[in-house]
Amino acid sequence: MSTNVQVIVRSRAAGIPAEQNFALVASHMPECPPGGALVRVLNAAVDPAMRGWLSAERNYMTVPDGAVMKAHGVGEILASDCAGYAPGDVVFGWLGWQRFAAVSGAELLWKVDLALAPPEAWLSIFGLNGLTAWVGFLHLARPVAGETILVTTAAGGVGGVVGQLAAAAGLRAVGLTGGPEKVARAEQELGYAKSIDYRAAGLHDAIAAACPQGVDIFFDNTAGSLADEVFAHLNVKARIIQCGTASVASWLPPPTGPRRERDMLVKRLSWQGFVAFDHAALFPQALDELQTLYRVQKLRSQDEVLDGLHHAPDAIAKLYRGENTGRLSIRP
Amino acid sequence: MSTNVQVIVRSRAAGIPAEQNFALVASHMPECPPGGALVRVLNAAVDPAMRGWLSAERNYMTVPDGAVMKAHGVGEILASDCAGYAPGDVVFGWLGWQRFAAVSGAELLWKVDLALAPPEAWLSIFGLNGLTAWVGFLHLARPVAGETILVTTAAGGVGGVVGQLAAAAGLRAVGLTGGPEKVARAEQELGYAKSIDYRAAGLHDAIAAACPQGVDIFFDNTAGSLADEVFAHLNVKARIIQCGTASVASWLPPPTGPRRERDMLVKRLSWQGFVAFDHAALFPQALDELQTLYRVQKLRSQDEVLDGLHHAPDAIAKLYRGENTGRLSIRP
Repeated sequence: MSTNVQVIVRSRAAGIPAEQNFALVASHMPECPPGGALVRVLNAAVDPAMRGWLSAERNYMTVPDGAVMKAHGVGEILASDCAGYAPGDVVFGWLGWQRFAAVSGAELLWKVDLALAPPEAWLSIFGLNGLTAWVGFLHLARPVAGETILVTTAAGGVGGVVGQLAAAAGLRAVGLTGGPEKVARAEQELGYAKSIDYRAAGLHDAIAAACPQGVDIFFDNTAGSLADEVFAHLNVKARIIQCGTASVASWLPPPTGPRRERDMLVKRLSWQGFVAFDHAALFPQALDELQTLYRVQKLRSQDEVLDGLHHAPDAIAKLYRGENTGRLSIRP
Repeated sequence: MSTNVQVIVRSRAAGIPAEQNFALVASHMPECPPGGALVRVLNAAVDPAMRGWLSAERNYMTVPDGAVMKAHGVGEILASDCAGYAPGDVVFGWLGWQRFAAVSGAELLWKVDLALAPPEAWLSIFGLNGLTAWVGFLHLARPVAGETILVTTAAGGVGGVVGQLAAAAGLRAVGLTGGPEKVARAEQELGYAKSIDYRAAGLHDAIAAACPQGVDIFFDNTAGSLADEVFAHLNVKARIIQCGTASVASWLPPPTGPRRERDMLVKRLSWQGFVAFDHAALFPQALDELQTLYRVQKLRSQDEVLDGLHHAPDAIAKLYRGENTGRLSIRP
């Protein structure tokens, strides 16, 4: 009979969570909880945002020490006491880093269709990444065909979808990413008209050359000095969408940088921070549109699946080392 | 027969424009230009934004050396070659710092009614200040009754209108201003539930005490370290409206301060810079609403009128020294 394996959070991470912040624990097979479901996890997500969940700093979400690591996952329902879900259904929800998940009804988010796309795609383009890209770009950034959008971590899980959504909407998408493999992939597979290696010399001139009409939308996943480079290229009435802050290792205390008030005023900028789940009412519309784009081959999924939960403790650090090719998930 | 007196810009100002940047010049009485009007100026505005117009730095508007200082004014039409305007009409427009203005039709913005309010009120609550407050607060900040708004330069030309609009809309308005006279005036006359002297010790605690529910809208006219104090009190989903940057003397190069990307993301902030004239299509609605509030005595005008153009060269510096009581204008 199967027993469970779970990844438990051991301690707060100062900076990027690593091996020592987690423990693999074998446990008994859980039972189906009252009002919930017992789920066999097929894939569990690895997200840059998880760094914040393990931080001692204020964050929109926290996973306490001793708890199973929280994560989106795709899984098959083995037993259900939850209306609308039956054994055999495949679901997307908060399943966590574990083989078997005993979850409440509230943790089951929606059903997925493995005939349309494999489990990992429901964690990427039809999961938090795709929804984040859709909300940030199509709902918040007010894109207009012909405009230029610049995206940081352009080949990442969210950035890769933003590039494709922007191309489909008739914008010029320009990406910043790290290393020749990602630069090439962003241009060849992810909708970017031009992709720039942010580590290369002459970044200012490279951005200017890639954005001859300036930047109308700045979709920022990195913050820090890389974002400073982009600010100089923003057009009047540009929109800045703050989706992540991946390049800054610690915000306690906040690092300093150039003050932005004058740019905000003189260029009449608008700068919006967001978390996709604040816009959950839009998810059905977003999923419908993302699936339509997938069917007509204007949206592809880029996934890297790690085989086994023993990869989990190093998985967030792997993301921040930039080693992944596509959206990272774990097959437990 | 009357001759004209004009205030001419002599040089770019490094920082706050002062006496040496202007010259008073006597000139011939101008003629009514083809397609325009000859206007006797009754009052000409003095605005904090004028600092930017004389700066060598990039700005949304510039007055070149050798030109008459640009300014909004209220004046009486003496002669007109412009459809819709006749001698005797009183108008609001770009009249400049001068006794008589020969203006194009495009520089005449709208007619004013001196039976409703005196000339100086058409430069303040029914002029750029009132329109700026209306656009920034009612159009951009998405206010909800019961929320808390914090306003810097609360007793100033724009801040004084924002406080009254916020009180009329059912918000708790908290002001930051300098010195006991302005603190008292903000609370007694300008709609503020509480006003704080930003120069006093213990500012962090004073803001916390004045905003027990935190800050939902930050209407910022100052930028810099004073704005930093306010950031710590912003609620999730707070809106920052960047209306001015009065506390920072020079932006070349930009001073540094705490990076804001993490606050933007974690608190899902939205930060909007604006210039009222970008929203000119809304001015008729705004003027209508401002006049209604004035008639029912929920909006009062606070004006200080300087008598004579010889006050003009020091007038912007006087604003930045904080010496004015109410919206400053010049009777030429």
